[in-house]
Amino acid sequence: MDIYEAMGSLRAVRRLKPDPIPDDVMDRVFQAAAWAPTGGNTQPFRIITVKDRAKMAVFQQMYSEEWATYTSAMRKGLDQMPDAQRASSRKMLKAGDYLADHMGDTPQLLVFCFNPKMMAITDSDLGRPSIVGGGSVYTAVQNLMLACRTEGLGCVLTTLLCFRESEVRELLDIPENWFTCAHIPIGYPVLKGHGPISRRSVDKMVYTDTFGQAYR
Amino acid sequence: MDIYEAMGSLRAVRRLKPDPIPDDVMDRVFQAAAWAPTGGNTQPFRIITVKDRAKMAVFQQMYSEEWATYTSAMRKGLDQMPDAQRASSRKMLKAGDYLADHMGDTPQLLVFCFNPKMMAITDSDLGRPSIVGGGSVYTAVQNLMLACRTEGLGCVLTTLLCFRESEVRELLDIPENWFTCAHIPIGYPVLKGHGPISRRSVDKMVYTDTFGQAYR
Repeated sequence: MDIYEAMGSLRAVRRLKPDPIPDDVMDRVFQAAAWAPTGGNTQPFRIITVKDRAKMAVFQQMYSEEWATYTSAMRKGLDQMPDAQRASSRKMLKAGDYLADHMGDTPQLLVFCFNPKMMAITDSDLGRPSIVGGGSVYTAVQNLMLACRTEGLGCVLTTLLCFRESEVRELLDIPENWFTCAHIPIGYPVLKGHGPISRRSVDKMVYTDTFGQAYR
Repeated sequence: MDIYEAMGSLRAVRRLKPDPIPDDVMDRVFQAAAWAPTGGNTQPFRIITVKDRAKMAVFQQMYSEEWATYTSAMRKGLDQMPDAQRASSRKMLKAGDYLADHMGDTPQLLVFCFNPKMMAITDSDLGRPSIVGGGSVYTAVQNLMLACRTEGLGCVLTTLLCFRESEVRELLDIPENWFTCAHIPIGYPVLKGHGPISRRSVDKMVYTDTFGQAYR
């Protein structure tokens, strides 16, 4: 698939079929992740693909609890929203509810782990939230999601389960110094899956020489 | 370009020509970044493309200072390294030195800014380094670098200039609540540019159901 076509149609797909994914497809998806650039080429991440049904049931329970908490304020505020925002929020909630109700049935849940001791985190002492460690993991996450899109697989990047990290580490026997930063259910889409996406235009995202100065 | 071909040959290219990059090429590169998925689709990043020669000279000065500091231990340890590691470290240092000496001549330096107030950072209170904020920025960085590779442009993700964030924010008039997390010089490659990459194999990066358990 052409690279721009893949990027321009990579949606968050939250309704996924339970159908298994062929091994050769997953080989290509994981190879895409392994190819990603990382600081000093240390590749400080690992992926655990969870297929065990008992573990998946635990993940579904944890995820649906966190999803309910995370969305409760939005649900209460729906009536106060402008019409367009309410429609879009309802749509997102409906798709998210589907995922929360069916995560345990998705064929594979990919848990990205990382080891901060293998990273040079250059923004850890700046007195503001640090995110640079993500530069050696989410490059791989994006490669993986683009590969899913190329292979016709739906997927969505979730991070809510970080709130349950201690339980997840125990469930997956994640050792000392390794932590979790992405939980990506994948499977073939129930509906159309990937397609048009809604984003701000380039001239609202890019400036020249000075913050806020017109791109062109 | 086929997406797997682009991913499998995306190298860190540190020797870049000063030749300007056509506007239509940069439009596609920036569009790729803008397409990236972000948490809640808030797109909490902006890109400043620095072309002003006076500002670029300041960036080169800051970068070469940080590069010298960052690599001083490695330089001192070269003699003690095994042959293969020494050869690879020397190669990396040589390319990095070239970048440090020529950053001011590259046609564009892309500075990624982010606003943590627009992010839901789910791993900020876990008593370990937080990286989840990066999930809404480095997806865009990876799209951008893949687009560069597709367009025949060299690029490399650097984060050393986070050590100079206060100076960078002043130089680019970056407002309150916005910070920096990636500094990517881009340009046409002096040498061959992209090509074969060296990575751990998939079976060393992916586990099944439990950390450490064989991928297949």
